Amino acid sequence: MAAFIEPKLLKGFRDFLPPAEMIRRDLTEKIEASFRSFGFIPIDTPALEYAEILLGKGGGETEKQIYRFKDNGERDVALRFDLTVPFARFVALHQAELTFPFKRYHIGKVWRGENAQRGRYREFTQCDFDIIGSDSPAADFEILLMIRAVLLNLGVNVTIRINHRGLFNRFLAHIGQREKSVDVLRTVDKIAKVGYDETAGALAAITGDTNAQKILDFTAAASGETFEETLNHITELSGGPSPESERLCLLRRFMRDTFDDNFILDPSITRGLDYYTGVVFETFLTELPDIGSICSGGRYDNLAGLYSKNTTISGVGSSIGLDRMIAALESLDKLPATTSYTAAAIACIKPEDSGLYQALAQQFRQKGVPCEVFLEAPPAGTADSADSKQLVKQFVLAEKKGLRWMIIPGADPLRDPLTLRDLAGRQNRAGLSLAEAVQIINSN
Amino acid sequence: MAAFIEPKLLKGFRDFLPPAEMIRRDLTEKIEASFRSFGFIPIDTPALEYAEILLGKGGGETEKQIYRFKDNGERDVALRFDLTVPFARFVALHQAELTFPFKRYHIGKVWRGENAQRGRYREFTQCDFDIIGSDSPAADFEILLMIRAVLLNLGVNVTIRINHRGLFNRFLAHIGQREKSVDVLRTVDKIAKVGYDETAGALAAITGDTNAQKILDFTAAASGETFEETLNHITELSGGPSPESERLCLLRRFMRDTFDDNFILDPSITRGLDYYTGVVFETFLTELPDIGSICSGGRYDNLAGLYSKNTTISGVGSSIGLDRMIAALESLDKLPATTSYTAAAIACIKPEDSGLYQALAQQFRQKGVPCEVFLEAPPAGTADSADSKQLVKQFVLAEKKGLRWMIIPGADPLRDPLTLRDLAGRQNRAGLSLAEAVQIINSN
Repeated sequence: MAAFIEPKLLKGFRDFLPPAEMIRRDLTEKIEASFRSFGFIPIDTPALEYAEILLGKGGGETEKQIYRFKDNGERDVALRFDLTVPFARFVALHQAELTFPFKRYHIGKVWRGENAQRGRYREFTQCDFDIIGSDSPAADFEILLMIRAVLLNLGVNVTIRINHRGLFNRFLAHIGQREKSVDVLRTVDKIAKVGYDETAGALAAITGDTNAQKILDFTAAASGETFEETLNHITELSGGPSPESERLCLLRRFMRDTFDDNFILDPSITRGLDYYTGVVFETFLTELPDIGSICSGGRYDNLAGLYSKNTTISGVGSSIGLDRMIAALESLDKLPATTSYTAAAIACIKPEDSGLYQALAQQFRQKGVPCEVFLEAPPAGTADSADSKQLVKQFVLAEKKGLRWMIIPGADPLRDPLTLRDLAGRQNRAGLSLAEAVQIINSN
Repeated sequence: MAAFIEPKLLKGFRDFLPPAEMIRRDLTEKIEASFRSFGFIPIDTPALEYAEILLGKGGGETEKQIYRFKDNGERDVALRFDLTVPFARFVALHQAELTFPFKRYHIGKVWRGENAQRGRYREFTQCDFDIIGSDSPAADFEILLMIRAVLLNLGVNVTIRINHRGLFNRFLAHIGQREKSVDVLRTVDKIAKVGYDETAGALAAITGDTNAQKILDFTAAASGETFEETLNHITELSGGPSPESERLCLLRRFMRDTFDDNFILDPSITRGLDYYTGVVFETFLTELPDIGSICSGGRYDNLAGLYSKNTTISGVGSSIGLDRMIAALESLDKLPATTSYTAAAIACIKPEDSGLYQALAQQFRQKGVPCEVFLEAPPAGTADSADSKQLVKQFVLAEKKGLRWMIIPGADPLRDPLTLRDLAGRQNRAGLSLAEAVQIINSN
């Protein structure tokens, strides 16, 4: 016999017990239903890829976080750390097989060996959605609308803060700072995290004091103004109307034609990632803004450029982190309350009748009542009545499992009348036919 | 700009494009619905664990197949190669938090770096289900019944071949060969793969010629006999009635009380894995038996013994390999035919009206018609009629996406009558209200 092994988990990794896993499934199913209702379709990619492919666009920080190793064939491989890079590789490999515009979603686990602080895990679930092969503003808008729809479907209200990196760059060109764009946008991206003063200092170091002030004025244009006012303001600051300001204008028209109360034009939103080239956005919970953006994204010019020499595929997309979303819903006391997938259990009176109990359960299921069978009768002798000690133990177990009803079969389980125990009300209804029991369960 | 990177996959790993992924999701949802209807609830565990935990029960073969490496913190870690070992570790760690009998399912990916032959992958999906904390024959039977229910729900009929390792061992003790049990059972397990003659030779080498013949007679007891006849036969060969033969007798009673046409008592079924101690079983497709068992399992004495000194938790469980199941359904031409989650798309006539098209789509969704919005109007000028060239391109795209209907909005999309294009029948119905369009779509 082997020695005892301590059953411990790796730091930053989690087991999900049924109550937590049922919540995860419930939320994932809701998110997926929203994606599907907009015509998005799923893909999947391997957890493990060549390290070269996953690290292609990453810098030093990615390299430190990634789970990378040599496989048994001495290949340099790594676990995916997001779903965007595998998607770029996927599109380069399969573009001939896809129908464009291609609207896909991908829900899956990703792994990052970063410091596991509170709420930061090394294994977590991402829900990505993108439209590629369309430059249309209608595609930008559909992604924004889907974010709204997905989150409303989870029971929360959101504010989506939108900007256009192209317009920001046009403004930087207007003040002669276009070549500093990468550094400026990255610095502005951190303003909510590090504060105004530190950002001002950092911008001054990059562009000089005067330009830093102009940039801060540009990013502050949203304060207290309507979408239209902010748009006019930053259009002016960037040298007048342009294709980028026209696109924002069109997005605003789309909002007015559908829902216009969830969107804010906020020139301080820039997203740190270099591959965004157009509209960018972050999503905040109206009731819990301090948790930060729970769904960010934007438009990019050339998704698969690193893996495909001949094609340029542009698109727009976004991602929801399931774990952060769950933490937010928990804070708001809005987690789904699933405790069981079944409403009722058949009590076990005589273990040798278990086949008949299964047949009875099958009849309930066929009438739309998901129904479990209890497998053991606690050793308390024969049951004389529906309230015997033997049954009480089963009632306790059923309550622990989150069931509402207990079905107590008669001596001939498929023919004799049934007794229905309401575990919430602690009451029995005896002498019921199957149809009557089904009716009571379904109407409660 | 970084150099071009070839977008290739690791050998044995796969991308799933939408048509394949939709099939996978459809089947997984059906399997999960069956599990849930019996009161089984889900768990999840990490992809990555300490190698020591995963290898604890494994022999040399597991060690060669596993993806094992040192993480950034120099921990010896590995990707899970099945869902059974992590479940044993899970139960040892969380037993105080679980309600017993505990009925759980777990659907997830596992990784094995074995030779990637045709149909054998290095990343694949397992669907495991177990009842632990119950010694009851009713638990054995529930697992058998669930196998039947899950597979019927996928549209296939099955034969489940059952045996009892305890009874086999009792027979071996009766002929004085009990101490050879591990080798004998492993040898018999391969009989379908290597054939009668090779098995006979291997058994003779282990137990001598006379005993080998007795063992082969025992395993052949099923030929042409009923469950009861076979049971009487092997009960006799093992020295008369025993707790093991009584259990099989009770299982037979349960079958008669529910469904008795899917089960065969087959003493040649032994399962190679050492941890099974009771009932074991394999499942064959009635129409495609040669593909081998698609769902195997059995009863074990002490699931978490390696990770827990103080508890003995017995149980019974089984596992469906999703990839083999899909291959089987494909051979039988029984794969689900999902090509799209939406029935209809709104045509794009004027791109600047995209907001109104989204609002219209939302109205269809609210009436139960999942509906996509087309984002671009092919550049063919203004549409004069519902059959203009501009629309024909969108019809072609919609057909490629597997949609049945195209909704063609009027000049004022939310107020003017709609035209509905039946892409299958290549016919238009003009002048429809939203309610009329919904009614036509829902009744087809």
